[in-house]
Amino acid sequence: MAEFDRESILLAVSAVRQRFGDRADSGAALCRQHANTITWLENQPPDVVVFAESTADVVETMRIAADHRAPVIAFGAGSSLEGHVNAPYGGISLDLSRMDRVIAVHSGDLDATVEAGATRVGLNSFLRDQGLFFPVDPGAEHATLGGMAATRASGTNAVRYGTMRENVMAVTAVLANGEVVTTSRRARKSAAGYDLTRLLVGSEGTLGIITELTVRLYGIPECVIAAVAPFQTLSGATEATMLAIQTGLGLARVELLDPLQIWAVNLHAHLGLAERPTLFIEFHGSATGAPEQAAAFRDIAMDHGALGFEMADREEDRRRLWKARHDAYWATRSAWPGKMTLATDVCVPISRLAECIAETEADIARLGLVSPIVGHVGDGNFHATPVIDPDNPSERAAVEDFLKRLADRAIAMDGTCTGEHGIGQGKRGYLAAEVGSAGVAMMRAVKAALDPAGILNPGKIF
Amino acid sequence: MAEFDRESILLAVSAVRQRFGDRADSGAALCRQHANTITWLENQPPDVVVFAESTADVVETMRIAADHRAPVIAFGAGSSLEGHVNAPYGGISLDLSRMDRVIAVHSGDLDATVEAGATRVGLNSFLRDQGLFFPVDPGAEHATLGGMAATRASGTNAVRYGTMRENVMAVTAVLANGEVVTTSRRARKSAAGYDLTRLLVGSEGTLGIITELTVRLYGIPECVIAAVAPFQTLSGATEATMLAIQTGLGLARVELLDPLQIWAVNLHAHLGLAERPTLFIEFHGSATGAPEQAAAFRDIAMDHGALGFEMADREEDRRRLWKARHDAYWATRSAWPGKMTLATDVCVPISRLAECIAETEADIARLGLVSPIVGHVGDGNFHATPVIDPDNPSERAAVEDFLKRLADRAIAMDGTCTGEHGIGQGKRGYLAAEVGSAGVAMMRAVKAALDPAGILNPGKIF
Repeated sequence: MAEFDRESILLAVSAVRQRFGDRADSGAALCRQHANTITWLENQPPDVVVFAESTADVVETMRIAADHRAPVIAFGAGSSLEGHVNAPYGGISLDLSRMDRVIAVHSGDLDATVEAGATRVGLNSFLRDQGLFFPVDPGAEHATLGGMAATRASGTNAVRYGTMRENVMAVTAVLANGEVVTTSRRARKSAAGYDLTRLLVGSEGTLGIITELTVRLYGIPECVIAAVAPFQTLSGATEATMLAIQTGLGLARVELLDPLQIWAVNLHAHLGLAERPTLFIEFHGSATGAPEQAAAFRDIAMDHGALGFEMADREEDRRRLWKARHDAYWATRSAWPGKMTLATDVCVPISRLAECIAETEADIARLGLVSPIVGHVGDGNFHATPVIDPDNPSERAAVEDFLKRLADRAIAMDGTCTGEHGIGQGKRGYLAAEVGSAGVAMMRAVKAALDPAGILNPGKIF
Repeated sequence: MAEFDRESILLAVSAVRQRFGDRADSGAALCRQHANTITWLENQPPDVVVFAESTADVVETMRIAADHRAPVIAFGAGSSLEGHVNAPYGGISLDLSRMDRVIAVHSGDLDATVEAGATRVGLNSFLRDQGLFFPVDPGAEHATLGGMAATRASGTNAVRYGTMRENVMAVTAVLANGEVVTTSRRARKSAAGYDLTRLLVGSEGTLGIITELTVRLYGIPECVIAAVAPFQTLSGATEATMLAIQTGLGLARVELLDPLQIWAVNLHAHLGLAERPTLFIEFHGSATGAPEQAAAFRDIAMDHGALGFEMADREEDRRRLWKARHDAYWATRSAWPGKMTLATDVCVPISRLAECIAETEADIARLGLVSPIVGHVGDGNFHATPVIDPDNPSERAAVEDFLKRLADRAIAMDGTCTGEHGIGQGKRGYLAAEVGSAGVAMMRAVKAALDPAGILNPGKIF
């Protein structure tokens, strides 16, 4: 790809500042905030931030950017974890957070159309009194739906409700050539040509800028039952989960905390949980169906080395049971104060999950790292969260080694280096191992076709 | 696109005949059978049929085709409905039906890897004693899984289990440049770059030839309950369905037969069903869960004008209850002997389904056509099946008018001109109305990037 020309980029910056007045701002602090601030990756700020208020604003920005070959990086909440919003070549950060309207809710069809800057919590507030909800719940509370679509986000209930891949029905996006495409209408299924929706979902802003999206909704379940079960062994926990899924128990959440994570939570929240691999489970269903599922899972769990099985259906009791899971991240931060917490994200077939976690724990021990583990067992996805001092070169080297071995391990087990967080900048090195050079070439060919000048979020994915 | 050169194509034909010996055959009858034989579209045979037995065979064929710029059209069972296997420019039909192995079943992970020529019935036979099944069940009984993936096929239980879009986890495909790509590994979810799987699924053989695929499996449900409910009005039936879905009742099948279809089935199978819009429903679940769902749906149905509600759980009783649904197509053939039956395939948001069917029935009456209707209500998808004498010019003109108005109507109602059958040749004219010129341009750009010479199934989709 040809290098960017700084002069041209600065001309584009002038042009957007002229066009958008006080909705375009080059202030240093604002620009830094519109780059990676969350992880240990560098902060690479844009040259200007444009606050879009409509698809037309995005089209105009794109035209200016295309005229000057200036990078355009979409920004929602900035909560992505692999440097997705960094501007390694400078350019224009296109902040879509003001485009936060819920445009339409079709309760009979169980879908809603929103602007890309709408947040999942905002949408769910809007929907609550209609008895509907949007299920995808990544860790970042204020993530925008557009950003979640762009990174193919997932959450704790993907095992039941799916990820953004399954829950985005259509997107409206502005392409590199300034054209606006709406990838689908509202039919529940379609065989009409290429799946443009799923081409853009997960494209991390490199094929188009999503300005609106239509998402699937679900009825809020009549009954929710939470359960907690510490297990003798991790493989007992994963086998119980596999059997439950095969039996069609329709688990809504199956989360794992490893013994070290439990220790941290006990410390932080003054709980006295057994330091064992522990599942936190949720069942959604009818007033009779959900308890039946929970009882069936309890039987399976007890057959697979569960050391206990506590259940609750009332909201305050459920919250108490799940406190350890909810507090996991903060517990890790406070158990090792002054350290930085990294989030990893591999995903393997569930039959390999226990083995993958065991090998990962062995690696953690061998490298002298400290890393609690949280997992979405129903999907085979887990997050080891090593805590390090990023200014200590040997800790940094050890964790970089760990990260590479972890990604390689997952790929070798027929999995992926990223279940949820995306490639961004951080995982570019693993793509070829995962999809082969032919797969990368195919992606590059699509990218070159849709963004020949390479202005859409350069330096990401490839 | 540049025209094909007949000389070059014939050189390619010679080359494959030389390379593959008696596995390449130019016999006229065989070639005609490897083109559209099912619908009223022309039969446009290839110049040669190559019987592939491995991915390597497909690679070699593709290389020969690329060297001579000869069209390559993949062939599975030839059961697609929009002329997908036609060879309008001649060329090579690549028959994958001998590649029918089940390569691996991972019961703990609920996935299986098969060769593209494996059929869904073959896979399900293989799986039955493991208590697993693959759910996507299009009308064509012997459809190959590769063909189903290429056309993004669906079936009667998509409302619960999804379509090929949701149930293909990965494909291995040979691209126009002869490279072999495997689009994903076996993780249940991935955020690793572009969704190449869903780019190829539904690409109708125009972006690559699928040679293997990994599909999702499900546990065979413990309990299946079938039900039949005639309704006072069609809108009562669709409203009951919408409410049931919102309540999370997890219906596995919700099929509709309209009064004319019921009349035909009564005639053919000597049943005495009320000539009313009638739902045929199936519930899948546990021994207590499925009956509970069925009872809940019965209550909803009775509140929405159901005139009866008959249920059965034993296999022979279920088959008896569903006989009308199973015999629908044959009943139509025998009720109007000597006529040709066309299958249409629109899909709209469920909230518009009753209205869409009502307008369609009015159109049928106005045009003096005869057309029973079968629908997958849970998806908003229905098939009007007009019966005509294709040699009668005025009937042919009337039905062509009907087809166009039907597709336009569905698109205007925020739906799609094809829920399941694909674009192929027959629906190319509707793509722009559905996804706009920007959407078509995006598809064309991707096609040009991945198949610049245009040899993969030319004349389809665009």
